[in-house]
Amino acid sequence: MTSAVTSALFRRDRIRVKDLFASSLTSLNEVVTVKGWSKTLREAGAGSFAFLQLNDGSCFRSIQVVITKGETEGFAAALASGGVGASFSVVGKVVESPAKGQEIEIKASKVDVYGTIPDASTYPMSKKRHTLEHLRMYAHLRPRSNIHGATMRVRHAMAFATHEFFHTHGFLYIHTPIITTSDCEGAGEMFHVTTLMPKNANDTISRTPSGSVDFSKDFFNRAAYLSVSGQLNVETHCCALSDVYTFGPTFRAENSNTARHLAEFWMIEPEIAFADLKMNIDLAEDYLKYCARYALEYCREDLVFFDQQVEKGLVERLENTVAKAFIRMTYTDAIQLLSEPKHRKKGKFTVQPEWGADLGSEHERYLTEIVYKHPVVIHDYPKEIKSFYMRLNDDGKTVAAADVLVPRVGEIIGGSQREERYEVLEQRILDSGANVEDYQWYMDLRRYGSVPHSGFGLGFERLIRFVTGIENIRDVIPFPRWPGNASF
Amino acid sequence: MTSAVTSALFRRDRIRVKDLFASSLTSLNEVVTVKGWSKTLREAGAGSFAFLQLNDGSCFRSIQVVITKGETEGFAAALASGGVGASFSVVGKVVESPAKGQEIEIKASKVDVYGTIPDASTYPMSKKRHTLEHLRMYAHLRPRSNIHGATMRVRHAMAFATHEFFHTHGFLYIHTPIITTSDCEGAGEMFHVTTLMPKNANDTISRTPSGSVDFSKDFFNRAAYLSVSGQLNVETHCCALSDVYTFGPTFRAENSNTARHLAEFWMIEPEIAFADLKMNIDLAEDYLKYCARYALEYCREDLVFFDQQVEKGLVERLENTVAKAFIRMTYTDAIQLLSEPKHRKKGKFTVQPEWGADLGSEHERYLTEIVYKHPVVIHDYPKEIKSFYMRLNDDGKTVAAADVLVPRVGEIIGGSQREERYEVLEQRILDSGANVEDYQWYMDLRRYGSVPHSGFGLGFERLIRFVTGIENIRDVIPFPRWPGNASF
Repeated sequence: MTSAVTSALFRRDRIRVKDLFASSLTSLNEVVTVKGWSKTLREAGAGSFAFLQLNDGSCFRSIQVVITKGETEGFAAALASGGVGASFSVVGKVVESPAKGQEIEIKASKVDVYGTIPDASTYPMSKKRHTLEHLRMYAHLRPRSNIHGATMRVRHAMAFATHEFFHTHGFLYIHTPIITTSDCEGAGEMFHVTTLMPKNANDTISRTPSGSVDFSKDFFNRAAYLSVSGQLNVETHCCALSDVYTFGPTFRAENSNTARHLAEFWMIEPEIAFADLKMNIDLAEDYLKYCARYALEYCREDLVFFDQQVEKGLVERLENTVAKAFIRMTYTDAIQLLSEPKHRKKGKFTVQPEWGADLGSEHERYLTEIVYKHPVVIHDYPKEIKSFYMRLNDDGKTVAAADVLVPRVGEIIGGSQREERYEVLEQRILDSGANVEDYQWYMDLRRYGSVPHSGFGLGFERLIRFVTGIENIRDVIPFPRWPGNASF
Repeated sequence: MTSAVTSALFRRDRIRVKDLFASSLTSLNEVVTVKGWSKTLREAGAGSFAFLQLNDGSCFRSIQVVITKGETEGFAAALASGGVGASFSVVGKVVESPAKGQEIEIKASKVDVYGTIPDASTYPMSKKRHTLEHLRMYAHLRPRSNIHGATMRVRHAMAFATHEFFHTHGFLYIHTPIITTSDCEGAGEMFHVTTLMPKNANDTISRTPSGSVDFSKDFFNRAAYLSVSGQLNVETHCCALSDVYTFGPTFRAENSNTARHLAEFWMIEPEIAFADLKMNIDLAEDYLKYCARYALEYCREDLVFFDQQVEKGLVERLENTVAKAFIRMTYTDAIQLLSEPKHRKKGKFTVQPEWGADLGSEHERYLTEIVYKHPVVIHDYPKEIKSFYMRLNDDGKTVAAADVLVPRVGEIIGGSQREERYEVLEQRILDSGANVEDYQWYMDLRRYGSVPHSGFGLGFERLIRFVTGIENIRDVIPFPRWPGNASF
């Protein structure tokens, strides 16, 4: 397919900087056109020439362009462009660079300025190093920063690796709905989607005789919400097409103003028919390793930057992730281990681990960051702390659930074998306090030709944090949404 | 990467039906395990044996399984399974099939029933052919129908082809926000996203002193909406990373209860820096051809089904799409052509084409389905009928916009070169009646290092309709949403 594509219509009238550095694609003395934004513009030789670092976002590195008075057409205009952030088209010859750390540079015969920086002192992305908080305020301009550009390239690579991984394994990508009338995890955490909002002072929301909002007047004739998970929906397609996955946005209306939570984030949720929990964990481990290996292979330059600027040892951590088997242990064993005096002492837990209670973030990170320094899979949790759809184990006390914990992030994956037995599922719904009537369509999957199946969910932004080392989740998504912020 | 993956942990304990039919992966007399759902279960030989058509969704075809009394363990239970829709695990030997139209079948030594159909007469996906309306009512079960399974495989293939196409061309996938406070195309068509909804009869929505809703009390401290397009947002990343695209859900709160509109649908929006309208159209043509070729190569079996059952001539239409250059003409020429007496007569237009008015669906489909029987690109539209962000041509009357029209669907792509000149854009915003203050961040892209750039949007469901021939847009998305319907 690729060869047919490259012989097709679309052609850039420039070479991408990434391709310029790929020696197989460029020869010395070749005349090329490059276009991009200046990272720096530095005069030298008493104003007789200047160095322009030109970046087009195709890779981390910029190409050095040498512009010379009397030799480069447009020299004066380039110097008057405002420097950092201005945009250029450059025509010039590829030559060996005498400068350290770069093999080639461009000796420009012609420079055109597309757009200037009218006043460098007020340009929010000026050359100085900015805090992540500053960059967040200018989410529309921060793609021009080194760190956000690198993050977006890694994010793209992880999205592509995800599709490639599941596609190669024969999974079908299913778009589960964003707007839903199924209220799976409690309306308190969900956003309403509505056209009922009063348009002016005289407009009111229709009420039923009992006084509650009359959603029969709303767009969907019912209360509608933003989905918190595609899992229940994607199970419908799993129970017919066997191997499926989602990759879409999900939402939480939680008032969590932390570095770990977003109101809008992306999730990947594979679902496999005829699979038990072990197969599910195997898939999760393969998938995470595939992503880490993909980043190491295709995002090396960006990872080196993150290793230097964000998390020392990042590359080694990812290499270890790929090289070694993940630790696997039952929840019961994890509790036992954490309860040992030496770990209690070393872990300084604010809450003591106890069978029957959920593992706290402090316990999870202690296991993965201190004890094993490696991804850890915890499986077979007490049924009381997990969702109704997780398959009840034969002990009657635990369910076939598994979480994957990784250094730097904590829980990155949560999954389970699904309860495929109609009566057991019905009882579990009742026990959870939910309404069986609300789940009739979900029960139908067990009523008709039920099959064992398993799946998991991975928070995509957590994956990006895992692969880049970036701490704050607001810095790994183009336009973060949190309480009080949906700018742009 | 692929070889490393196949040597990894995840292994199915079954062979997929698709792989079974791939002769390179199976040998005659090999003993295999297959799992899936029965499409038919037919007794023969006075109850001494039976034919089970087993499908696992991996491909259109089912594998025929022969189960024989006295030879196949589980024979009786299989016959009592309820037949169509029941789920099975089958162990057996791959043998040549004496039956017409299939090369192999499985001689089963063992059959296990996972899930029965308790009462075949009430199973909504029974063997008889169902209407699309019936299937839509059972969106959770319709993946088990031939047509929806085939549609989902094609939909997956088109999503993967999309990512592969843009990735191969060096585009970065950017997740633009779903929740937005930018009201780009008029709030009347947008859904509110809110946590202000009254929870009970005593709860009311906060109002400002002037009586309007007090959105400062809402989750984002402002009125928030579901995005109608990622374009303006993705331009921010284009103006730094050069080649980007979105692929995400978009929303319209329009009260359009038609076979052509959904309240929730998926869009693909590439955006290219340093590109004019011609380069943009070239990209669009390459992309559509890539998708058509990908479907022809990887979804042949499903396309043959659609050709037989949905649209006679579908495969030939797609082959022509790939083989021949798209027609390209200006809007002015299109109006002139449509105004010719012979076309007026043949087209029987309810509205006569007139320069300055938008082309109607009847004109678009006439051009692409009757006159050219091929995709048609119309470009350079009057500025009055297009958006403010489209680049003003030198004539001062038209803008550098282009729509791609295709048979069966009409407009499938809309794109333009973007106005990159600050003052011109400002004037166009004013002329459109919008508020320049609302677009400050968008203007910043022109204020600082502006570059020429172009992009387009493709409605993903329209692509699926184009490739499958399916008429109703509600049948090409897993869970369609329209006024009054957000079930499941």
